[in-house]
Amino acid sequence: MTPPDLLTASAPVSSLRAKLTDLRALMEEHQLDAYLIPSADEHLNEYLPEAKQRRIWFSGFTGSAGDLLVGRDWAWLFVDSRYHEQADLQVDTSLIQVSKLGLEGHKTLVELLETLGQEHHNKGFSFRLGFYPFTLAVEQFRDFQKQVEAAGVQLVSVAENLVDQVRAQQDEAESDLLSTYATSQLFTLPNTVTGETTDQKLARVREALQKSKTNLLPITKLDQIAWLFNLRGSDVPYNPVFIAYAVVTLDAAYLFTNLQRIDAQVQEALHNNVTLLPYEHYHQTLTSLVSQLQPARVLVDPKHTTQGTYQILEKVKKEVGDTVKIVAASNPIEGMKARKNAIEIEQMQQANLKASRAKVRTIKWLQEQLANEQTLTELDVALHIEQFYAQESNFQGLSFSTIAATGANSSIVHYSTPSSETVLSAGQFFLLDSGAQYLMGTTDDTRTLIVGNPTSEQIERYTDVLKAHINCAMQRFPKGTTGVHLDGITRSDLWMVELDYGHGTGHGVGAFLNVHEGPNGISKRAFEPLEPGMVTSIEPGFYAPGWGGIRIENLYVVKNLTPQPPPQVDLPKTTWYGFEPLTYIPFDKRLIALNQLELRQRQWLLNYHAAIVEKLSPTLETSEADWLREACRL
Amino acid sequence: MTPPDLLTASAPVSSLRAKLTDLRALMEEHQLDAYLIPSADEHLNEYLPEAKQRRIWFSGFTGSAGDLLVGRDWAWLFVDSRYHEQADLQVDTSLIQVSKLGLEGHKTLVELLETLGQEHHNKGFSFRLGFYPFTLAVEQFRDFQKQVEAAGVQLVSVAENLVDQVRAQQDEAESDLLSTYATSQLFTLPNTVTGETTDQKLARVREALQKSKTNLLPITKLDQIAWLFNLRGSDVPYNPVFIAYAVVTLDAAYLFTNLQRIDAQVQEALHNNVTLLPYEHYHQTLTSLVSQLQPARVLVDPKHTTQGTYQILEKVKKEVGDTVKIVAASNPIEGMKARKNAIEIEQMQQANLKASRAKVRTIKWLQEQLANEQTLTELDVALHIEQFYAQESNFQGLSFSTIAATGANSSIVHYSTPSSETVLSAGQFFLLDSGAQYLMGTTDDTRTLIVGNPTSEQIERYTDVLKAHINCAMQRFPKGTTGVHLDGITRSDLWMVELDYGHGTGHGVGAFLNVHEGPNGISKRAFEPLEPGMVTSIEPGFYAPGWGGIRIENLYVVKNLTPQPPPQVDLPKTTWYGFEPLTYIPFDKRLIALNQLELRQRQWLLNYHAAIVEKLSPTLETSEADWLREACRL
Repeated sequence: MTPPDLLTASAPVSSLRAKLTDLRALMEEHQLDAYLIPSADEHLNEYLPEAKQRRIWFSGFTGSAGDLLVGRDWAWLFVDSRYHEQADLQVDTSLIQVSKLGLEGHKTLVELLETLGQEHHNKGFSFRLGFYPFTLAVEQFRDFQKQVEAAGVQLVSVAENLVDQVRAQQDEAESDLLSTYATSQLFTLPNTVTGETTDQKLARVREALQKSKTNLLPITKLDQIAWLFNLRGSDVPYNPVFIAYAVVTLDAAYLFTNLQRIDAQVQEALHNNVTLLPYEHYHQTLTSLVSQLQPARVLVDPKHTTQGTYQILEKVKKEVGDTVKIVAASNPIEGMKARKNAIEIEQMQQANLKASRAKVRTIKWLQEQLANEQTLTELDVALHIEQFYAQESNFQGLSFSTIAATGANSSIVHYSTPSSETVLSAGQFFLLDSGAQYLMGTTDDTRTLIVGNPTSEQIERYTDVLKAHINCAMQRFPKGTTGVHLDGITRSDLWMVELDYGHGTGHGVGAFLNVHEGPNGISKRAFEPLEPGMVTSIEPGFYAPGWGGIRIENLYVVKNLTPQPPPQVDLPKTTWYGFEPLTYIPFDKRLIALNQLELRQRQWLLNYHAAIVEKLSPTLETSEADWLREACRL
Repeated sequence: MTPPDLLTASAPVSSLRAKLTDLRALMEEHQLDAYLIPSADEHLNEYLPEAKQRRIWFSGFTGSAGDLLVGRDWAWLFVDSRYHEQADLQVDTSLIQVSKLGLEGHKTLVELLETLGQEHHNKGFSFRLGFYPFTLAVEQFRDFQKQVEAAGVQLVSVAENLVDQVRAQQDEAESDLLSTYATSQLFTLPNTVTGETTDQKLARVREALQKSKTNLLPITKLDQIAWLFNLRGSDVPYNPVFIAYAVVTLDAAYLFTNLQRIDAQVQEALHNNVTLLPYEHYHQTLTSLVSQLQPARVLVDPKHTTQGTYQILEKVKKEVGDTVKIVAASNPIEGMKARKNAIEIEQMQQANLKASRAKVRTIKWLQEQLANEQTLTELDVALHIEQFYAQESNFQGLSFSTIAATGANSSIVHYSTPSSETVLSAGQFFLLDSGAQYLMGTTDDTRTLIVGNPTSEQIERYTDVLKAHINCAMQRFPKGTTGVHLDGITRSDLWMVELDYGHGTGHGVGAFLNVHEGPNGISKRAFEPLEPGMVTSIEPGFYAPGWGGIRIENLYVVKNLTPQPPPQVDLPKTTWYGFEPLTYIPFDKRLIALNQLELRQRQWLLNYHAAIVEKLSPTLETSEADWLREACRL
């Protein structure tokens, strides 16, 4: 799948007017001219628990991105081009004005704040903007501060979230939701899945802390916590994580979460190494741990830690003095989690074979339905593939909302609600981007099919995208190569014919964790070197509004291709890496112009289709295996 | 040419022992445990005036990079792998120890400082490291500070340069050199060369300052100053610049330089817009300008401004208070200078045609000499090409030290002293990387030739590098594409056969300015988008120590390929860019395996060779034109 998107929201339970009235009363108490309600939550999640979907609850707008700014007698919602129409439909525009970013005359949040700040400044006041520091990453906060403070806007950190206060006042059901949202059962993953114990992971983290001359690491991100403690839960959709904080020091580790859902087995697995504490103790415990260390050198990752945690640390530093240092650096867990060990790779291979089998079965079923002139909607296919995913053992759910898009819908990159009315029709593309969570791994792949017979233009464009995919998939590259290099290599043939796609080429994928994970990626902004064990999607595309869209996506794991130890030769020794597929699903051969492929691209394709038959056939029924062999024959 | 390299140094005029004694006495006065002597000067020049080659003068070591650290009873020189041998030969190792970076047990400057800092810390002292803040860029200083302060090293900024003091004490000749080094005559460039007046440039700079909400810009870099004022000089080798500072405010501009070498014409050209002041007034004038502005918002480019200037500003800020703001941002001149206007492009085309003609004549001469069994040394060729360059009108000198390398020498990327003893021999490569300064533009190109008959391996490797060159040269790319993307595209075919080169693919080139200029480049670290009017080298290579080296380099200008205004089509509108050659010199056809090229690579090559004949023939004598036609016939 390409970038993130949010789910359905709770329907507004009380009127927007009442919420605004309550919020403005609280703003008055804090002497605020405006209050910022961003999309994020305390753990910078891509998928938020319902209780933390504050902007959605407050405004009714369910888009995945969009900031709400509430003033004393006005309110503005800022949305990008994906949501220009949706915002108008979902928001009461008599109370909230919608700024459509990119359109003439529509201001960004920062531009509006600059105007307001300047107006106040001219009157001799500063404009006081309230915000909740736990919903902004440190880096994000600093960039924002830099931009708006120049215009005289004063950022006022408010310790309590004012939307939560309004919500608790509004009705009891809401209040319940707020107090019981982190209740999913936690479970441990055995070594046969993780390949490394929590003890071993903690030892590596401590080694990294010592290397960076730090001795305390607060952890905000849920996938980092789940990885470190070999625990999973289901507090949010699609990502098998649980709401928690953690703190690691050189001789202790603390996990802060709702303890009521921890059973004996989990306790048993952790109790020697990890102190379990209620979620609410995070602030206080962090404060006392930092105060007690002499000296305390706290590693803060500005991308993955909230400004709220940073402010806790600054406060301690102020009280305790110079023995407390805050060191900005990457959280070492991020890189460790991304480099899968041998057992994790094997598990990911298994999970992706399951998902590949499910998609092969879905495509076979789909083509048979179409051959029998059955009417199929996008939703029919989305529901069917979920059934095929669930037939496989250890299924835990989808890894994101299935994108099943036909015709013009296939050109909408973020199309996330398969329609029960849109029918697959002859001559159109059908794009199926989906993935599943299995106990052993996470999957994500996209196939674009043609319904009926393709036009020569459809074949040409599909072949262009397939070439781009293969260019990246077959590329050998030296140690140190980053995602930007590979992004350029993927696009080069498309660019030669002046085609391109607006999203990144690939994202990291977790091992039974988040379908989007860092630090690796393949895009304009992917500056992290790709290292053996990292898993990435490769998913070039082509989209023409109205005409349709094509995306071809597999997951791959980075492999070391250089024999170890390297032979003694005169050339400077370079270590060479390459990609090994995790996904095994045939490309739609009716859309491939084989003669357009270079020899080495064709060779890659033949090998890949042969590998699909080899890997999947032994586990298929005869009729399925026959179908697959035919689908793979080029 | 690939990265920078320095020139010959002055021979030491007094013994190293005496210098160390004097320096240590000064260190004692300032209570310093060590003093840092880096390679850089006050203007962060690639080529330094002799008077500012402090590390060279002090140590005798002439390499282009290498920090010297002098302690109370020890001294260390830190050199990278290029200079391991040279440092041992040039430095008195009984007084200065050489740390050979990359070798087992050899510490980096930072590692040594960490050890020393820790040792002192354990004894209850901090280690006081003196440095001269005008020889470090702000960003460089901050990174360094971050690294060593953790180990308890205290950085002590010393206002006077201690090496200069030692040098002035040592002998009168040195003292003279220090006071008279910036004396080259300045001259103005007419609008027919620059395409834009200083007035117009100042207006654009001021617009950029207002856009970034700043009102004062101190300028440190000499090429930025030369560009802004349409002035040139020759205070340093190869770069047609002059030692100066400048300050631009919203209503004034100041140029600080040695005024004695400014004639009436230069004064006339500037006097309405620019206040001329002696170089030594920079500090004081900057201080008073910043004090007077209410408020002062000073733009400081951390990459291109020294810590010395930053400290002047901090001092004013301390005295004046909060009305002074220091804003970190890119100096807008850097981007303006890189985007050549139509007249500059035309001038660069002319300059590069001159240089191409000179190299064509050199190659013809060389091949004729070899055919007549004449003995040729590297130096013979280097001297000859300089003569051919000088035959062209408006020649101003070389743009860097010619690299003329044969046999094993061709694999040394930084080989900068053509030998009068090394003879071009049959079966070996000869690599000629050279460039010239003409009044209208700067040039830089590399051709690799075979002496005698090539082996099939030589043909294969040359063809690999040529394919890499063409891959980049023919690439179309959308607005927003950065140098990293193109670096990957250039290397992709080489990487497939596990070949690579250790330097960047391309660097920006000035318009009758520095042969290395920012902000654009094509490399791992080139994050700046390529924009129309930017000039870049494309110079992939392959080097095998002992076997030889290949580099193929042309200059190109980025062109907009999208017709303006774009046609009304349904596809999202993207603007497409591509490269147009400035260099027109045939590739050595004996080294090209045409059948290894893809169709489109072959087509590019045929077009390019045809263009060489078309562009150069009209200005050549008949015998030269005949030779060229034959050299271009594939």
